[in-house]
Amino acid sequence: MRDFSFTQLHKDKKTQARTGVIHTPHGDIRTPAFVPCGTQATVKSLTPDELDTIGVQLFFVNTYHMYLRPGIGVVKKAGGLHKFMNWNGPIMTDSGGFQIFSLAKKASLVKISDEGVEFQSHWDGTKHLFTPESSMRWQSALGGDMHIAFDDCTPYGVSHEKARLSMERTHRWAQRSLAEHKKLHKKNIVLKTPYQALYGSIQGSVFKDLRQESAKFISGMDFDGIAIGGVSVGESKKQMVDVLDWVTPVLPDDKPRHLLGVGEIDDIFTLVEHGIDTFDCVQPTRLARMGTVLVGNNPINQLANTPIKKHELDITNTRYAKDFGPIEKDCSCYTCTHFTRAYLHHLFHVKELLGYRLATIHNLHFIHRLVDDIRESIQDHSFLELKRSWI
Amino acid sequence: MRDFSFTQLHKDKKTQARTGVIHTPHGDIRTPAFVPCGTQATVKSLTPDELDTIGVQLFFVNTYHMYLRPGIGVVKKAGGLHKFMNWNGPIMTDSGGFQIFSLAKKASLVKISDEGVEFQSHWDGTKHLFTPESSMRWQSALGGDMHIAFDDCTPYGVSHEKARLSMERTHRWAQRSLAEHKKLHKKNIVLKTPYQALYGSIQGSVFKDLRQESAKFISGMDFDGIAIGGVSVGESKKQMVDVLDWVTPVLPDDKPRHLLGVGEIDDIFTLVEHGIDTFDCVQPTRLARMGTVLVGNNPINQLANTPIKKHELDITNTRYAKDFGPIEKDCSCYTCTHFTRAYLHHLFHVKELLGYRLATIHNLHFIHRLVDDIRESIQDHSFLELKRSWI
Repeated sequence: MRDFSFTQLHKDKKTQARTGVIHTPHGDIRTPAFVPCGTQATVKSLTPDELDTIGVQLFFVNTYHMYLRPGIGVVKKAGGLHKFMNWNGPIMTDSGGFQIFSLAKKASLVKISDEGVEFQSHWDGTKHLFTPESSMRWQSALGGDMHIAFDDCTPYGVSHEKARLSMERTHRWAQRSLAEHKKLHKKNIVLKTPYQALYGSIQGSVFKDLRQESAKFISGMDFDGIAIGGVSVGESKKQMVDVLDWVTPVLPDDKPRHLLGVGEIDDIFTLVEHGIDTFDCVQPTRLARMGTVLVGNNPINQLANTPIKKHELDITNTRYAKDFGPIEKDCSCYTCTHFTRAYLHHLFHVKELLGYRLATIHNLHFIHRLVDDIRESIQDHSFLELKRSWI
Repeated sequence: MRDFSFTQLHKDKKTQARTGVIHTPHGDIRTPAFVPCGTQATVKSLTPDELDTIGVQLFFVNTYHMYLRPGIGVVKKAGGLHKFMNWNGPIMTDSGGFQIFSLAKKASLVKISDEGVEFQSHWDGTKHLFTPESSMRWQSALGGDMHIAFDDCTPYGVSHEKARLSMERTHRWAQRSLAEHKKLHKKNIVLKTPYQALYGSIQGSVFKDLRQESAKFISGMDFDGIAIGGVSVGESKKQMVDVLDWVTPVLPDDKPRHLLGVGEIDDIFTLVEHGIDTFDCVQPTRLARMGTVLVGNNPINQLANTPIKKHELDITNTRYAKDFGPIEKDCSCYTCTHFTRAYLHHLFHVKELLGYRLATIHNLHFIHRLVDDIRESIQDHSFLELKRSWI
């Protein structure tokens, strides 16, 4: 039996937006769900308890990073990622492919062949090879609940011909990933390892025919879920909408859909509107560490004459040095109920570790409350009204 | 009425060690007590709630740092340090003198006169003047519970003649500090500000006659407590013992005694043995951020063939990469009850913020449990046995 399934609960009348529940061996995920990034086996600066308090349901860990440090063997010996990080909720891992292209030491030293991808470590320049089979084995050893098939992440700006070749390789690798995954699954049954789900990954760059062909191909395979890759590398938000417009009508209703690497506030509405169930993004946590905190359409911020750009407030700005209100007046997060903008401004001004942490708590809390509201709006058929009030 | 007092509870039969309670407007402090450093209005990486859980009773904030960033005015406008940091327990501030000498941009640009000390900011090179009167005003505005008189921190290695001149200046500044403090106290009564205690500071370098003269002089004044300064700048631990041997027999029994800037494990036993009640030190928190965690005389560490130097374990050492036990087997801190040495090793290896935090929690917990044990041993008249088991 697969201890993994997706139940659709509500569907918006006017858009593809939907709510649902993804059942995993480590608990249920109410969708739509934001997936924070715990790149190096930690959501930067926070403990699992804090994530739980914020309402984080699952988070992402990057296989590429785990492979290089601490090494897959260490995590396996620890009893898997859940035990290594002491996080008992669901975990999603990626194939490693995207990181190889974006982080490997020199792009020119990444060698792609049908076998797989050879690259140099961004830490020490040592050479490594990832194949669909090894990516599956490593994800299995890491023990996350949802894995992603190894794909050829098509760079932005290539010709239709090159995009086709890349997509076709992704499809061959999807087949090899699935075959290896099924082998591993048989072993896992014997070992009584909790079920690990596999998402197939759609590529096809910014070409309609390729994206649709890829969506059909991946949807036709025996994957537990569907991931859409190569969107965050696109040039514009318009291109992301195009890809979603082409791809999502093709996707089966009964499988959960994940979009890789996108999650700004306006994006979240776009993704949900197109029936995407989960999406990971480093943006809220990365912004936090730069001192940029998220704020709603809150009159308090306007009263304070705060120029709010994309719902972002730069706490390092001198105007907050003597601002003794919270980041957001009605926010119930730990940061807003305990500390002022002035204190956060000070912590960032003198580069204190606590600042990064308090801003991260607020930003994750903010995004999770937003996604809570979005789920509720789909249930109430008021999703588009909510979207209009934000965008 | 002074809302500040010291009650001695137990006295060791064989040494000067004693237990007691310092009553402050923000709560009682059981002594001996370790005082962590919250230099820039934050005990690096931790929230006040975490400090409370660890058992931190009070912490130190540096007036020099507050003066430069965020500025005394900001903290005053926030309603004082307690509100600014959201810490409701006792707070100790220093005079600023020590930091001027150790942090000001160039030692050659620190100008000492009888009026006070002129220096350049370590942040931006701007010029500033601290006097006994301004130090008192700034500490009063910061609103800590215990202040320290402005002193001339004698550099190490000076002649007896120079040390005498410096000590005499410290004594003149002690008189001016106390006079200004009493003026401010009258205003505070009108404003119904909680009582702020003032500790006089003993100097005299490494000279017996000067230290004893200074101890008598400061003890004879109307201070609420006695601080011993200029010890951490000495060359050896032997010199610290000498200073304590000379000074402590002179001190009145009924005033609390603070030693500035010392607090390694062996030091703590030395200080307590000489009847010191409180002591601040950056060591446990600074070590933590370097990946050095404190460990007891625990057979587990010996079993793991861990070379323990001064009760310090370097978690960044490769030997801990696959060590899936906690830092200390019987430690009840958050870090040890939730995470392994291997996970901490990984966090430090990839420079993750959570690592600094988890190590800081452990080290502060460790020191606080040690000081708890010391208090209990004084009560049980087993202090020297406890000391022998550690040193």
